[in-house]
Amino acid sequence: MTAPITDIAKRVHDHTWKLDPIIRSLLDTDFYKLLMLQMIWKRHRDLPVTFSLINRKPEIRLADEIDESALREQLDHARTVMLSKKERIWLAGNTFYGKKHIFEPEFLEWFANFRLPDYDLSVRDGQFELSFSGSWCEVTMWEIPALAILMELRSRAAMAGMGRFHLDVLYARAKARMWEKTERLNRLENLRISDFGSRRRHSYLWQRWCVEALKEGIGEKFTGTSNVKLAMDTDLEAVGTNAHELPMVYAALADSDAERLKSPYKVLEDWNTLYGGNLLIVLPDAFGTESFLQNAPGWVADWTGFRPDSAPPIEGGERIMQWWRQHGVDLKDRILIFSDGLDVETIEETYRHFEGRVRMAFGWGTNLTNDFVGMAPTENERLRALSIVIKVTEAAGRPAVKLSDNPNKATGDEQTVQDYLRLFGGDSRVEQAVLV
Amino acid sequence: MTAPITDIAKRVHDHTWKLDPIIRSLLDTDFYKLLMLQMIWKRHRDLPVTFSLINRKPEIRLADEIDESALREQLDHARTVMLSKKERIWLAGNTFYGKKHIFEPEFLEWFANFRLPDYDLSVRDGQFELSFSGSWCEVTMWEIPALAILMELRSRAAMAGMGRFHLDVLYARAKARMWEKTERLNRLENLRISDFGSRRRHSYLWQRWCVEALKEGIGEKFTGTSNVKLAMDTDLEAVGTNAHELPMVYAALADSDAERLKSPYKVLEDWNTLYGGNLLIVLPDAFGTESFLQNAPGWVADWTGFRPDSAPPIEGGERIMQWWRQHGVDLKDRILIFSDGLDVETIEETYRHFEGRVRMAFGWGTNLTNDFVGMAPTENERLRALSIVIKVTEAAGRPAVKLSDNPNKATGDEQTVQDYLRLFGGDSRVEQAVLV
Repeated sequence: MTAPITDIAKRVHDHTWKLDPIIRSLLDTDFYKLLMLQMIWKRHRDLPVTFSLINRKPEIRLADEIDESALREQLDHARTVMLSKKERIWLAGNTFYGKKHIFEPEFLEWFANFRLPDYDLSVRDGQFELSFSGSWCEVTMWEIPALAILMELRSRAAMAGMGRFHLDVLYARAKARMWEKTERLNRLENLRISDFGSRRRHSYLWQRWCVEALKEGIGEKFTGTSNVKLAMDTDLEAVGTNAHELPMVYAALADSDAERLKSPYKVLEDWNTLYGGNLLIVLPDAFGTESFLQNAPGWVADWTGFRPDSAPPIEGGERIMQWWRQHGVDLKDRILIFSDGLDVETIEETYRHFEGRVRMAFGWGTNLTNDFVGMAPTENERLRALSIVIKVTEAAGRPAVKLSDNPNKATGDEQTVQDYLRLFGGDSRVEQAVLV
Repeated sequence: MTAPITDIAKRVHDHTWKLDPIIRSLLDTDFYKLLMLQMIWKRHRDLPVTFSLINRKPEIRLADEIDESALREQLDHARTVMLSKKERIWLAGNTFYGKKHIFEPEFLEWFANFRLPDYDLSVRDGQFELSFSGSWCEVTMWEIPALAILMELRSRAAMAGMGRFHLDVLYARAKARMWEKTERLNRLENLRISDFGSRRRHSYLWQRWCVEALKEGIGEKFTGTSNVKLAMDTDLEAVGTNAHELPMVYAALADSDAERLKSPYKVLEDWNTLYGGNLLIVLPDAFGTESFLQNAPGWVADWTGFRPDSAPPIEGGERIMQWWRQHGVDLKDRILIFSDGLDVETIEETYRHFEGRVRMAFGWGTNLTNDFVGMAPTENERLRALSIVIKVTEAAGRPAVKLSDNPNKATGDEQTVQDYLRLFGGDSRVEQAVLV
């Protein structure tokens, strides 16, 4: 018999490369960042903001697990990445949410020359202090790549000591588990679910595998991925609309309590000048869903749907449906998008609860792209997904905060949180463990 | 970002090769075949025999599933394979069962020039009629490679329509299941288990993976593999002793009933002139264990162990222990080797039953190397292991048969089976489903 032929060049390369870049494309980000970016670019281009890393589980000493210089190398590499010609053509020519030319030519021209701005990184008490300061339209683009870099560097650190065979078993078991999930989800007849897992993924390649698994496993029920690059490469829909940073910044900019109370609706007004149809999704919980609904102008009921992102899905969904009914809306025309800490069990439970009563869709994040607990042949707690976020913490020199429906997901300056709680009210918030 | 580099030569080769040979080494066989071969070569070199394929589940129409010309190509290719220099040196220099030079130089010299002899293949009623006729020392060597070829061709046929992703999921799930098995087995503190799965393996590469999994997963408890090539390549012990073909041929050669009744012990006498120690393992069930024990000369109790291969393991083991006790043997010095249709459940049950009472070892076959039921993303019944054997059916022009402790495992000419049953008695045989 003949010995297997080894590709010598590949093997040498594998063992001598300086950097395995995590971020290789500016489109390796969530689609809603691009939608928001265009709005920010048009209306608040030069607004100075700061985004900061928040480790929601500080007992995990990130800076002990991830090498600072490796982190710098990855962040520095990400700063060299620019939009490729193919990517620009695709953004200009593709249909998003059924609409052509969603991105204006001037915006794309600006974006073609875009690079990620500088970062501030230091280590204190075993934690990274990582922040990004500059104009909003630059800084905002760091959120997803910086999170993905931190997540993947941690995965690599967790696996650094594992042998070839243990790695083989690890991924085999993770694939087997993922496939069981697709088989279970496939039993939900009218399911609509998307990948929202870029930011907390185990790795880029693993996210890609999970997306392929959903494509193969549930077919039409898989309605897209938030990851723009994966959407482009795999001919899937790019999905997502908007995030908390919009109301957070708008609220920070408000000069009075009255203006601040109105700021969440001002976001929707601005959004509506740019986008329509299925992109009109309300994210109601930045300062508490209850306050949002009670103070909402009537036209908010005309929007296509809500994305309850921190209330328990069934209670949160029921509250919004009640509000819709109060506004005489036909629920059959409305959609609820669930995206908070989902896994198969919660998806099944929520699906069965709302089935036939309202349209719904699921945005499946961390438990889709980073569910490795118990998969390693030798227990490896460091393969558990981190609970990290990168949030806007300052806008125009003022603190930017989020209250959320779950006090454990509040972010930002504590005094400002208290001030906002007095203003928006916080009685209906429900404390829940933050799973991921 | 750069596109991945494709090894063009490899890709072209992958898509244009004429044959992916299943048998690439004469050592890709079970170790006991070599031990038996040396004895056959010394004592019955030119005895004319016929070995025949038996499909124990004729409802599976093998010739409909496996292409006849592909089968011929693989059998023809196997006939071109000869012992390599490295393999010969290893056979001569390695220690087997703690003993050096187990193979005599003259035997190795003969084996160095060995090629598999011709075969007879035809198709009738959806089945292959495959047989091998010639001198015993040549024909015997077909058993394992011919079975492995049939098994792997069937696996390939079962997977021929599967896409890249489904294959990925298939093997990921099979690996995950195999790893669960190693984790369960690892809880049995004094377990000793070997791979006996060459003949019914899903494929050669899969057998190799399973052997690696056991090495990694249960360490010292994994005591070797029956596959000589895998033993050589992975520095494991090559294990196995003798098989039914010896008493079957010896019984066929007997010229009287009295001589035939003695033939199983004549096998042991001949064996003992060549091998000793842990190679002195009795395989008692060729014509029924009960008859074997009742007629056995006292010296059989001096042998190291028994391999009950068709009785239910617990009853079969207890009967042998009872017989040992009747012969005043200290059970602590004896070993029972279980090898019939094992899987984790039966291994656990048998282990717990005999733990601390007698030494024991397990030879794990089909369910180790070919457990793919339920693993394919789309149900694929053809991935279930075949139940095929290749048995000696004729020796010196006389029919050769096996009675077994399980009537469903009897083989050979029906009239001769009845004659043998009258001679050896068959009352204590227990009908059981043949699982694999």
